[in-house]
This record gives sequence, C-alpha cells and structure tokens, in this order.
Amino acid sequence: MKKRQKTRTENYKKHIGQVPGTLIYTGKKSDKDFYVECFDYTKEAIEESVLLNIEDAINYKGTDSVTWINVDGLKYIDEIANIGKQYNLHPLVLEDIVNTTQRPKIDEYDNYLFVSLKMLYYDKDENIVIEQVSFVLGKNYVITFQESEGDVFDTIRERLRLNNGRIRGLKSDYLMYALIDAVVDNYFSIIETLGNKIEDLETDLFAENTRDNINIEVQQLKREILKVRRAIFPLREIISRVEKGEHPLIYKRTITYYRDIYDHLIQVSENIDIYREMIWSLMDMYMTTISNRMNEVMKVLTIISSIFIPLTFLAGLYGMNFEHIPELKYHNGYFILLGIMFIIVIGLFFYFKRKKWL
Amino acid sequence: MKKRQKTRTENYKKHIGQVPGTLIYTGKKSDKDFYVECFDYTKEAIEESVLLNIEDAINYKGTDSVTWINVDGLKYIDEIANIGKQYNLHPLVLEDIVNTTQRPKIDEYDNYLFVSLKMLYYDKDENIVIEQVSFVLGKNYVITFQESEGDVFDTIRERLRLNNGRIRGLKSDYLMYALIDAVVDNYFSIIETLGNKIEDLETDLFAENTRDNINIEVQQLKREILKVRRAIFPLREIISRVEKGEHPLIYKRTITYYRDIYDHLIQVSENIDIYREMIWSLMDMYMTTISNRMNEVMKVLTIISSIFIPLTFLAGLYGMNFEHIPELKYHNGYFILLGIMFIIVIGLFFYFKRKKWL
Amino acid sequence: MKKRQKTRTENYKKHIGQVPGTLIYTGKKSDKDFYVECFDYTKEAIEESVLLNIEDAINYKGTDSVTWINVDGLKYIDEIANIGKQYNLHPLVLEDIVNTTQRPKIDEYDNYLFVSLKMLYYDKDENIVIEQVSFVLGKNYVITFQESEGDVFDTIRERLRLNNGRIRGLKSDYLMYALIDAVVDNYFSIIETLGNKIEDLETDLFAENTRDNINIEVQQLKREILKVRRAIFPLREIISRVEKGEHPLIYKRTITYYRDIYDHLIQVSENIDIYREMIWSLMDMYMTTISNRMNEVMKVLTIISSIFIPLTFLAGLYGMNFEHIPELKYHNGYFILLGIMFIIVIGLFFYFKRKKWL
Amino acid sequence: MKKRQKTRTENYKKHIGQVPGTLIYTGKKSDKDFYVECFDYTKEAIEESVLLNIEDAINYKGTDSVTWINVDGLKYIDEIANIGKQYNLHPLVLEDIVNTTQRPKIDEYDNYLFVSLKMLYYDKDENIVIEQVSFVLGKNYVITFQESEGDVFDTIRERLRLNNGRIRGLKSDYLMYALIDAVVDNYFSIIETLGNKIEDLETDLFAENTRDNINIEVQQLKREILKVRRAIFPLREIISRVEKGEHPLIYKRTITYYRDIYDHLIQVSENIDIYREMIWSLMDMYMTTISNRMNEVMKVLTIISSIFIPLTFLAGLYGMNFEHIPELKYHNGYFILLGIMFIIVIGLFFYFKRKKWL
Amino acid sequence: MKKRQKTRTENYKKHIGQVPGTLIYTGKKSDKDFYVECFDYTKEAIEESVLLNIEDAINYKGTDSVTWINVDGLKYIDEIANIGKQYNLHPLVLEDIVNTTQRPKIDEYDNYLFVSLKMLYYDKDENIVIEQVSFVLGKNYVITFQESEGDVFDTIRERLRLNNGRIRGLKSDYLMYALIDAVVDNYFSIIETLGNKIEDLETDLFAENTRDNINIEVQQLKREILKVRRAIFPLREIISRVEKGEHPLIYKRTITYYRDIYDHLIQVSENIDIYREMIWSLMDMYMTTISNRMNEVMKVLTIISSIFIPLTFLAGLYGMNFEHIPELKYHNGYFILLGIMFIIVIGLFFYFKRKKWL
Repeated sequence: MKKRQKTRTENYKKHIGQVPGTLIYTGKKSDKDFYVECFDYTKEAIEESVLLNIEDAINYKGTDSVTWINVDGLKYIDEIANIGKQYNLHPLVLEDIVNTTQRPKIDEYDNYLFVSLKMLYYDKDENIVIEQVSFVLGKNYVITFQESEGDVFDTIRERLRLNNGRIRGLKSDYLMYALIDAVVDNYFSIIETLGNKIEDLETDLFAENTRDNINIEVQQLKREILKVRRAIFPLREIISRVEKGEHPLIYKRTITYYRDIYDHLIQVSENIDIYREMIWSLMDMYMTTISNRMNEVMKVLTIISSIFIPLTFLAGLYGMNFEHIPELKYHNGYFILLGIMFIIVIGLFFYFKRKKWL
Repeated sequence: MKKRQKTRTENYKKHIGQVPGTLIYTGKKSDKDFYVECFDYTKEAIEESVLLNIEDAINYKGTDSVTWINVDGLKYIDEIANIGKQYNLHPLVLEDIVNTTQRPKIDEYDNYLFVSLKMLYYDKDENIVIEQVSFVLGKNYVITFQESEGDVFDTIRERLRLNNGRIRGLKSDYLMYALIDAVVDNYFSIIETLGNKIEDLETDLFAENTRDNINIEVQQLKREILKVRRAIFPLREIISRVEKGEHPLIYKRTITYYRDIYDHLIQVSENIDIYREMIWSLMDMYMTTISNRMNEVMKVLTIISSIFIPLTFLAGLYGMNFEHIPELKYHNGYFILLGIMFIIVIGLFFYFKRKKWL
Repeated sequence: MKKRQKTRTENYKKHIGQVPGTLIYTGKKSDKDFYVECFDYTKEAIEESVLLNIEDAINYKGTDSVTWINVDGLKYIDEIANIGKQYNLHPLVLEDIVNTTQRPKIDEYDNYLFVSLKMLYYDKDENIVIEQVSFVLGKNYVITFQESEGDVFDTIRERLRLNNGRIRGLKSDYLMYALIDAVVDNYFSIIETLGNKIEDLETDLFAENTRDNINIEVQQLKREILKVRRAIFPLREIISRVEKGEHPLIYKRTITYYRDIYDHLIQVSENIDIYREMIWSLMDMYMTTISNRMNEVMKVLTIISSIFIPLTFLAGLYGMNFEHIPELKYHNGYFILLGIMFIIVIGLFFYFKRKKWL
Repeated sequence: MKKRQKTRTENYKKHIGQVPGTLIYTGKKSDKDFYVECFDYTKEAIEESVLLNIEDAINYKGTDSVTWINVDGLKYIDEIANIGKQYNLHPLVLEDIVNTTQRPKIDEYDNYLFVSLKMLYYDKDENIVIEQVSFVLGKNYVITFQESEGDVFDTIRERLRLNNGRIRGLKSDYLMYALIDAVVDNYFSIIETLGNKIEDLETDLFAENTRDNINIEVQQLKREILKVRRAIFPLREIISRVEKGEHPLIYKRTITYYRDIYDHLIQVSENIDIYREMIWSLMDMYMTTISNRMNEVMKVLTIISSIFIPLTFLAGLYGMNFEHIPELKYHNGYFILLGIMFIIVIGLFFYFKRKKWL
Repeated sequence: MKKRQKTRTENYKKHIGQVPGTLIYTGKKSDKDFYVECFDYTKEAIEESVLLNIEDAINYKGTDSVTWINVDGLKYIDEIANIGKQYNLHPLVLEDIVNTTQRPKIDEYDNYLFVSLKMLYYDKDENIVIEQVSFVLGKNYVITFQESEGDVFDTIRERLRLNNGRIRGLKSDYLMYALIDAVVDNYFSIIETLGNKIEDLETDLFAENTRDNINIEVQQLKREILKVRRAIFPLREIISRVEKGEHPLIYKRTITYYRDIYDHLIQVSENIDIYREMIWSLMDMYMTTISNRMNEVMKVLTIISSIFIPLTFLAGLYGMNFEHIPELKYHNGYFILLGIMFIIVIGLFFYFKRKKWL
C-alpha cells in the first residue's frame, strides 16, 4: 500500500474516546487569526465594531437592539469555549461548532437555537470547498462561527449598513433567515457549475476523439455530486423543523421566509438528483458508444480479411511448385485468375452491402 | 473548455444576495409588450376588456361579479409590483411570479391563494417549451400571470363568452379549476408526443441500419422526460393540498373537480414513469443488439479465417523451394492436394454447422 | 418520420379544452349495439330481462329487491347520459364511465359509490385486452358499464339464477363484491399466462440457437407486464378504501369478503413484481450468454490463427527466391522443417490447454 | 410452443368464478391419508391420541385444558369442512386453509385467530419445498392444518410430553407461539443453505474453468431466493400484528415471545436481502470476468498476428518471380533479411511490453 | 461440492427446536477465562474490583452508588444464567446475550433496559471483527457482556478513575451513554479504513497494470460493507428509541447526549451508503475501462492486418508460377510494385488517421 496523504476522514479519529463536550478542532490548521466582528442595530441606528476580546460583547446583551456576532477562526478553542461560557451554551453545542466534519444539524434548547450547516464554493482550482457555518440564535442576538475568513455574508452586511429592505426593523430570527438565505442562494451557483460540468462531459463523451482519462473525470464528478448532496440534503429537514415554528424564538411573521428557503432547498435537491441520474445515464450511453466503436473496428478488420485472405490463398495455390499443374500452362491462366479474383471481390462487396456493413 | 451559450441555470445567479422580495425576471427577454386582459362576469352578463393600466381593475374589486385578470409579460417588473400593491400581495409572492425558474408551488395566505405551475407545449421545432403560469385566487377574482402571449386558455375564454357549461354560474374557485384543468389537459398531448418519440426510437434501434447519432437522441429524450417530470410532478402535491379543501376560498362543491384534476395528474405521472422505465429498458436492449451484431461480425471473420488460413499454409508449403520435396514430383500431387483441401473445407463446414454458426 | 397508426394515447386529445363532464367515448368504435340486461332478485324470486329503454329500470328503483343493471356499449353517449339522469349521477362520474383511458378509481358520493376498474383477458391472437368496467353501487342496485359484450360475469349470472351460495340473500354491496371478485379472479389467469411466457422466453434465451428477434419479444413482454401492472395496481388502493367500510352502503358483514379480494390483489401484485424482476434478470443473463458465445468464437479464431500464421510464415520463408539459402540445399531440409512445424503445433497445443481454451 | 408440465400457477384457475368459500384443494394430490392427532394437556397431565373422526375432538372443547389438534391431509375437503362446522369457522377461513397457493395471512375473528404461513425445507434433491401450515387459535385450543405428513413440530411434541420448559403451564397462545417459533427457527437453516449455495457459485464463477451452465444456475438461485422471500416476508407483518396484542386471545405475558419471533424474522429478511444483493453483484463481477478473459484472448491473437503477418509479407515479397529483384542476387541477402526480421520481432516485443500486454 | 469450513451461519442451527430461553453460546470457543470486573462509584469515591463469583455483586445492589459490572466470556453459560438470576433478567434476554448472531436490539422491561449492539474493529490481518456487546441498564447499575477480552472501554475506565468530566457525578443512564458512545466513536475508524480501501481499489482499477484478482477484491470489499451496514444500521432505531426518553431509567438531562450518538450514527450510515454507491459506480467504470482496452487491442490488430494482408496478397500474386505473367518481365516491375505498395500503406495510414485510430 502506498503512502497516503491525510484525508478528511482521518479527523474522525481525534474524537474517539474523548470526554463528550471536549472541544477538538477538526479543520485545516490555517494561519488565520482569531477575528470577531460585531453588528449591533435597531431600526434607527447601527454600530459596527471588531471585538478584541469576547467579554466586550456582554455590553450588547441586555439591550433591545439585535446583535450579530461573527466569529472567524475555529482553531482558537479557548476563545470559543469562552464565548460558550458567556452565552451559556451546552458543551455538546461547542463541540459541534468546532467539529467541522459535523453533519448539518439543528438542536433546540430552551433559550437558544443551534443550527449548523455547510457553505459551499469553488476555489481557484475549480475544486469544491465545504466550510462549516454554525448559528446560535438567541433572543436578541445571532452568533455565527466560521472556519475561514471569506464568506457569502457581504450582501447582508451591506443591507444592514444601508438599512436596505426590512432587515433592520425585524428581530434576530429574521437576521438568521437572511444569513441562511445567503448561504442557500449560493448553492444555486454550485448547481450551475455542476450542470455545466456535466454538459462538458457529455459533449466530450460523444465527441469522436474521446480523451483517455474521461472515465476518471466522470468518477470525480460523481463523487463531487455525492459530496454536495451530503452537504445540502440534511438542511431540508433542519429548515423544515424551523419552519414549523414551534420554537418561541421564531416569530410567525418570519415563518413565510423560512418556507421560502425550504422551497429553494427542494429545488436544489431536485437538481442534484437529476444530475445524479444524468451522470449514470451518461455512463450507460458511453458504454454503448464504446461498443459501437468496437463494432466498427471489427467490421473493418472483417471486411479486409474476408476479401484478401481468400485471394491470398488463390495466389498461394498457383505459387506452388508441383511439376504438373495444368492451369499454369494456359497462356491466359494469369488473366483468368485475375478475373476470378475480381468476381470474388464483387461478390463479397455485395454480401457486405446487404449486411449493411458498408 | 469551449465557450458556452448562456443556459437557463445561469439565471439562478441573478438572485444571489438580493433582498428577499426583490423582483427579478429570470425568463427570456422577448420583445412582447405588457398586456392585461380582463373578464368580469356573472351568470347573466360578461364584460371583456383590455386594461391599459392596472388601476382600472380596481373597479371590479368591490362587486359581486367574478373577475379574471390575465397578465402577459413578466419582464415589466414595475407593473407587476403595481398589481401586487393593488391586491396587497406578499413580496415573496411577487418574487415567485417573476422568477420563472421557480418550482411549482402553492402558498396559502389569509385572504388569497397563490399557485404557480408550468404550462408545457412543443414549439415548431419539436422542442419542449416550459412556461410558468401563476395564479392568485381571491374572493371574487383570479389573476393569472404568463410569460409569453400564447396559452391554452382559449377554450375557457370561449366558454365564458358563450356561457357554456357551469362556469359563469360559479365562483372564482371554479374559474381557477377550469384554468388549471386546461393546463393539465394539455399535459396529455405532451405525454402522447413523448410516447410517439419513444416508439420511433424503438423502431429505429431495432432496425437493421441504426443511425450513428441514435445514442445522442436517446440521451436527449431521457433529458426531456426528466424535464417534463420535474415540471409536472410537484403539481400533484399542490392540487392534493387544494383538494383537501381547508382554505376558505375553495368551496366544497368545487373539491370534486379538483380531485378530478388530481386523478389526471396521477395518470400523467404514471405514464411518465412508465416512459422512463421503457427508455432505460430500450438502452439495455440496444446494448444487447450491438453485442449480437458484433457476435455476427466475429463469426464471419472467424469462419473465413478458419477456412482459408490453413489452406494458405498448405499452398505455402508446396511453394517452398527445397530441392527435395517428394510430393512435388508426383504427377497427380496437385490434384491430391486440392482433394485434401476440399476435405478440410467440408470438415470445417460441418464443425461450424454443429456450432450453429452457419 | 414514418406514418403512424392511431395509437391509444391519441384519445387523450379528444378531451383537451372540453367542458368538464362532457361525455366523450374514447374506446374503439365497434359495431356493437347498445344492450341493457337487468336482474332483479330477492332471496325468493328473480326476474331477468333485457331493457329496451332505460326508463323501464325505474320500476325496480323503489322496491326492496336488489337490481343489477348491466349496460353494454359505451359509445351510446346519449343513453348513458339518460341513465345518469335517472340515477342522479354526477357529470364527472358519467365522463369517467365513457372515458376508457381512465385509471382505476373510486369516488364516494353521498348515496352511491362509483368504482371503475379494468377487466383483462387475452384475445385469440394472444394479445392482452384491457377493457374498462365501471360499477355504480346504490342502496338496492348495482349498475355495471362495459365497453364490449363478452365479460367474466357468467358465473355470477348462473349463481343468481340457481340461487347458489349466499348471493341472493344479501344486499347490493355483496353483489358488487361478487362481480369485482370475478374480475380479480380472472387476473390470476393473466398472471399464469405471463408466467408461462417468461418461462418460454427463458428456455429460448438459453437455448443454443437463439432467434434473432428474441430481443424484441423480451421488450414486448416487458411492456405487457407494465400494462398489466398499471391496470391492476391502483385497484389495491380502491379495494382497501372499500374494505375500511366507512361508506354506509358497505355493510360490516361484507367487509370480510372485500378483504379477501384485497388479499388476492396483493398476491397478484407480488407476482407481477416478481415477473418484472425476473425479466430484468433474464436480460442480464442473456447479455452474459452473448458475451460467453463471443468469447468462444474469439477462441476458435485465435487458436487457428495462432497455429497457422507462424507456420505459413515459415513456409513463406523457404519459398523465397534468394540465390543463396543454404537450408534449401539440405537433402532432408523439407522433412526437418515439417518436424519443426510439428513441434510448434504441439507447443501451442499445450499452451492453449494450460490456458483452458481447449 | 412446446408442451409444458403443469406448473403451480395453473392452480389459480381452479378458483375462477367459484362461489366464495368453496373449498378447493390446490396442492399436490399425494396418496397420504387423512390423519388427526390430538394433544390435550394441563400443567399436571397430558393425553395424546389419534382421532378417528373429528367429532371426538368435541370432548376437549369445554374443558380447561389446552388442546392441540394437528390435521394432516388437506385434500380431504369434506373432513376439513366438518372441522370448520365443529369449530364454527368462517367459510373464507376454510377456503384459505385448503388453498395452498395462499399468501401468508392473518385474519382476526371475534373468538378465534386465523394465521396461515409457509413451512420451508429442502427435499432430498436439494429442491426447496414450500408447504402451507394454517393455525386456528381459540380460547383453549390450537388447530394446525398441514398438507403433508412430515413437519418441524417434533421438538414441540417432545416438550409437551416431557413437560419441558414453560409450555405445559401456559395457555393456547403460548402453544401457537411455540409452533410458529419452530417454523421460523427452521428458516435459519434455509438461509444457511442459500448462503452456502451463493458461496459455491462465487467460487465457481471466479474459477478458471467456468462451467457452461453457470448462467442457468445463477438464474435458478435467484428464483429460489425470490420464492423464499415471498414465502417469508409477509410473515413479518403478521407477527407484528399479533405482537401488538390487541386480540383478547393473546395474553400480555406471551407478547414478549412473539416479539422475539419478530426479531428473528427481521434477521432472516435482512439475510435474504443481502443474498439478493450479493447475487446481483456476483453477476456483475462475472460479466467483468468474461470481458477480462476476452481481452486476454484478443491480446494473444493480436500479438501473434502483429508479429507474423508483417514477416510473412516480407517473405512473400522475396518469393516473387520478377526477373529483376536485385536483393535476390546478394550472396547474404537471405541472412540480411533474417536479421531485419529479427529486429522487427524485437521491436514489436518491446512495443507490447510497454503496452503491458506481455 | 467441496468440503466447507464451518461458517458463521451454521450457528443458527444450534437453536432450532430449543425451548425459548435456552442459553446457547454461538460464538467462537476461545480459551479465554470467565472474568468479571466491577466499578462502584459516587461523585466522591470509586472502588474497582475483580469479582471472583457473581454473588459478590449483590453488595453493591442496595447502595446509592452506580455500579458497572463488565462480564467477559460468554461461553460460561452457567455463570451468565447465575447473573440473570441475581438481577432477575428475563430468560429471552439471557438467550440474546449469549447468542452472538443476534441482530442489534433493544428490549424495554419494567425495571431494566436491555440493549445489544455490535463492536467493530480490524484485527491484525485487516479482517473486520464483529463482536457483540450487551448492556443491561438498571436503576443504579450497568452490566455489560462481552465475548472476548479487548474492548473500546479503556477511556471510560480512565475517566472513571480520574473523575474526568461529568461521568462520576451522574447516574447509570449516563454511564451507559458513555459506553455506547465509545463503541459508536470507534465506528468512525472503521469508516475511515473502508474509505481508504475504496480509494486504493480505485487507484488500482484505473492503473495501467490491473491485477487479475481485483475483481475478487472488489467483491470482498462489497461484502465487508454489507457486513458493517448490517451491524450498524439497526442501532439507529435503537438509539432513537432510547432518545425518545419514554423509559423511566433515562433521565431528561441525558437525552441530549443520546441524541448526539444518534447524530453520529446518521453520519456513519450516510458514509456507508456513499461507499456502497461508490463501489458500484467503480465497477461500472472498471467495465468501461476494460472495454476501452479491448477497443485499443482491436485497433492494433485491425491496423496491422489491414495494412499487411493486402500487401501479402500482392506479393503472393507475383509469386505465382504462371508461364505467362507479363508484369514479371518488366525490368522495373519489382520497383513499380514496391511503389504501389507504398501508396497503399500511405492511403491506409490517412484512412486510419481520419478515423482517429492513430
């Protein structure tokens, strides 16, 4: 067995046998610093700040304003634990926040709601990146936890600053909706890229000059679809739970919006399943194409062999050195033989024609 | 990677990061004008008009008569927004109306019902066209929103004008039923065309002279079926929701009619699934046909080679120039050899006969 | 595209855009006359008659006796409409009665129950025939509607006449049970014929001398199974609805009997699904058989070529006309070469033997 | 179509059009006599007897003791009908008892419970035999109906005689449990035999020297698994119904035991489904094996042809009789040509080596 | 049929016809001794001991402390039965404890809860080992039963001794959670190994030089995945039952933890299903690869044959010994022929080039 690079699954091992609630960061050890940004807003005013230590957030806790605290850098275990203590989060919630191999999930607690989901995007090398984003929704705050710096929340920041749309006038449940909606909207561009990849593959599969490694590309695409599927599908159930509106933090007015997210997720899921079926079907088609080509190769071989092998035999026959072969003495023997050969060729030609091989 | 034409999926991107409720038209930018036609009727009278501006519709709002307002041209965002304001529609409903990539859906609001579905037809080039039609059912009105001008509602218009059947005597819920029924009835002709295409394909697949691009045609047909499936299947759930009759706008008397639509949809769905299975099965059959043909090609090659290769060897043997080959001196050597060759051919002939290759 | 015979699906079109409840006969336009037979019975007496016009049936309506009215000939739209008026049937029920492309269905109305199902049988050419039979169950009557004359109800007629079993002593719900039971019993003989066809096909597939069109036969059989499946499967749900006994016309005593039909339908369905799996599996096996045969063909070709091509080369070598080829001068050169050739043949023979090709 | 032996499905026909409740024996007409054995026991005493006529059983009916009446020989319709009269059984129950093509089922009546299931075993020729066993559970009796003499109940008889375990101290519901448990326990040995057959098949499929009829064997095994599946799967639902304990004859104490049977059935079912998947997967593997072998055959053919066909051409070239071929005059022409040929062979050897064909 | 080693399924037979509740050990007869360790702890103190006979455990029964009794060695039937008597366990529970072929299950009794599941690990030869662990959860004790000595509970023992985390302060339900969690955590490393195996297989399948037995390896891996699936999947349902918290021994506080296990199990299950799909897909890809290779072999054969067979014929033509072949007399006949041959080669070269075979 050859040496293997650390794969993502190996991270599972870090947890085995640990006390439940132990915080273990399972993501990539990037060099990013710990970074906490904070938006505190009412309909009238907004205050944007970068928190140097998490204790400063406590100032916003008692107020009526809505606070969005966005935490970047999950490897800073101690800071995360500190936030947990400030906001009184369950140890298992903290464990889930830093465990980036976590399946999307929702956990309902008495005075807060924990949602964990996956943000998907393509990096510069067209590889799919799956990053975990966790949400803690409290009475007047939303805390988001992200692994790395870039995210899809810039439009939300803009809307907050510009007081664009309803966002500033509504509660924390609408803020979480807006953030999740941004993540789900981004799934559509993933879907689109996958669709384009399948189309390219299809064009290539049916092209005359198939590349040799197309098999491996198909396999990779299949795996990519499986990955996306796994990241997105559980979210449907989660949003469906939120949308049922049984948690007191979710106001009736916002439920329509969550249902809208749900509809989008159904649409994304349907697309993924259609892509999955299309790629299986593509492989089937490709198999048939290969067989068709082999058929053609075989036909060429058979036609040429069938024509020349008998002729060669005839030529060989009169190349024999028997002392007494009467035909060899005929003055026109050679030409008669050429004529016979010509008739054979014509006959075979019509035979193949009738068989539709030509 | 080659340049790509704008595909439908790219429209998803227009929405990413927008304020929810932002109206973005995702369909084709056709040159069609904005066009609003209006039918206002009671059992006794009917008034048909083309509205120049939407505010005129307000006249029909307070009356007891049923009003059908049919809006063509979804790209006129402002006008749509105006209608929304007039009829007090939720921003998300307006967003769904103009978003033509929308999955068929139903949304129940307190005093109106929103239904969005797909109208299917084949254009002149036998390509399937999927056009979104949205319905807003109010107490005494139905508003329909269509992307382009042609539709399947002409028979309804006729029935309204001629006071044909029950339609003029019943409420707006029956009008919506009649309109949806017209859309669903049209699915049957889609189903029929698909059935004919499969039959043609089948005939071609088993014909002697298979076209080379049949593979690609099958792939296209599969995709077409997937598309139709995706457009039609969600409608079942929607009609089933209407048919349960929990919304106050749906009268008990009309429910039987909606159940009839539901039955039709089940029938259409079953047909689509059968077509899907048939086309997979066709591919399997085709694969077997190809293999059978290759078998036949191989048999021809094998039979000819098996007969002539040994004979050629024998001829070659007596074409050698050794000084001492006794057989060459026999006076009848040549004829004896011909006899031996004949016996070999006969032997092989019976061998292949026994193997059922001939 | 070649000209096409009218297929069954085209009948769908007749309905598009019609007023709901419009009666349109979608079956074959046979020359059969309209024919109504009537059985009116109590435990003590039975009266059998052929009704010339449907109004005569009204006599039996008020009585306590059970009346079975059997209507043949669905193309006589006016007569059907007349019956509908007499018995106060909903327009959609009448539409379903004459629409023979209808999926099996049940509709519960306040004072009658409408059940539509499919009667299956093989005609003389071993083609499956699917005929629609509709039942209207009222308080003291059952009306059956059939497309063509022959049916599977003769045993019921006999039992009525001979007062055989419980049938004469029970209500109309038992009569409908007896009629449906006769239809379902007949499904078993369809199942049996399908089973035999699969067995024949299997024998043929594995026989040495496979027919060329076996592929097409398999495809036809698959389609036949799909057809039967579609005709029978919805019936399970219908009988299950009846068997739940919520309709006042179905007495508790009869429910056991309907449950018995349900059990039979489950058994039939299971058989159909097993046949479906068997026929897919058969195709897989057939594919393997073909490949095995090709393997054998290839082996024969390879063995003969591998033996004779090298020998022919050797013969060709000593057939060259170089002035100086020392071996040609040896007195026993020819025999030595024959010996070498023999050794090569022996060697290849053992090589193929070891490879298990011989 | 060739003549066909009577298959099992043909028995369906016997029922078509009969009065419901008509007793028709659908099994094999064996020569076995009608045979009734009877165990009557309390915790303290047991009485074992062979009943000559069923009326004798009436003596045990009023007592507090539990009575097990085991009836062998379903073809004795009259006797069965007699038992039915004695114990007041519903006609449909009697019909199900003698109809051996019956699907496993449960029917709950007011004062008795009817369960019908399948006993499976392999006969001497390793063919699977499916025999129907029906149970009627009454307040203080269990009646079992078997088609043929041998059964899996000997251990129960022994436990009854020896007062082994709890059986003698408990009610009739425990007796039925013990009997069904014996049947289900026996399924495990069926499962084991199927497992072994699959393993043998697998070994044979991957062996070098595949038998020709292995295809047919696989098909037969698949069918056997389907048969077993159909016989066992419905039982899960039946036991689940019993285990819910809603029938007054099933005491709470016994429910744990029925749940145990249910667990066993789930285990058996899982195994069957795994076998089913394994055998499909085996076929896939086999297909690949065949293709691999063909690949190898082709390689041998291609290597030998590619080497010798060009050489033969060269030899043929210098076997021509042109008057002026300069090379023929060279003294070492022959040896130079041999050298060239050797170089060609070496070249091709390395070419094939690089392609990994050698 | 060849001799067969005892397989696991044969153990089923041991049970057939036994009195329910009979203890039969179905595992491997290892030489391990019977071994009982005991932890008795409160938040303040812990006492660890090895029990020489099970009666000593009775001392811990009345106390408030939590007791964990871990029993190794299921073949010591008598001792197990003794424990059952001490703790008043149902005979069927004892039967399930020692029956290692048991499917994972949960049984709720009035004052204790029985859970049986599978511990998975790879042994030194990389074979998967499935060992049964049973839990009996009582008011203040947990008894675990293991087949062999090694287990995954060492971290729990450590946490108990070091009073690490919450474990010492909570009740027996949390102890059982901690133990099951340790088992489930270990599943992740199984998943990881399976993932690596699939990746290795994939690399090998697409490598140039495919091993011959790769087919068999794939089959084995499939079977391994099936095995793991069967061991793990039923656990989801079991934990889901515990997590619903209806049993009085499961405190509300602990339910969050059980839900965490449930989430992990869902994650593991999803991975297994993805692996299953990937391995099927791999086989498909492999099949295509084989066909592609055969295509290439065929092309080489066809190209070489197509070029040299016609040339050989021409050479054979002028090797004939007719007395009168005019071309042979031309002085440059030989060179003209060589030229013609060269033109044929060039022509075929471009033909194959255009067909993309070169």
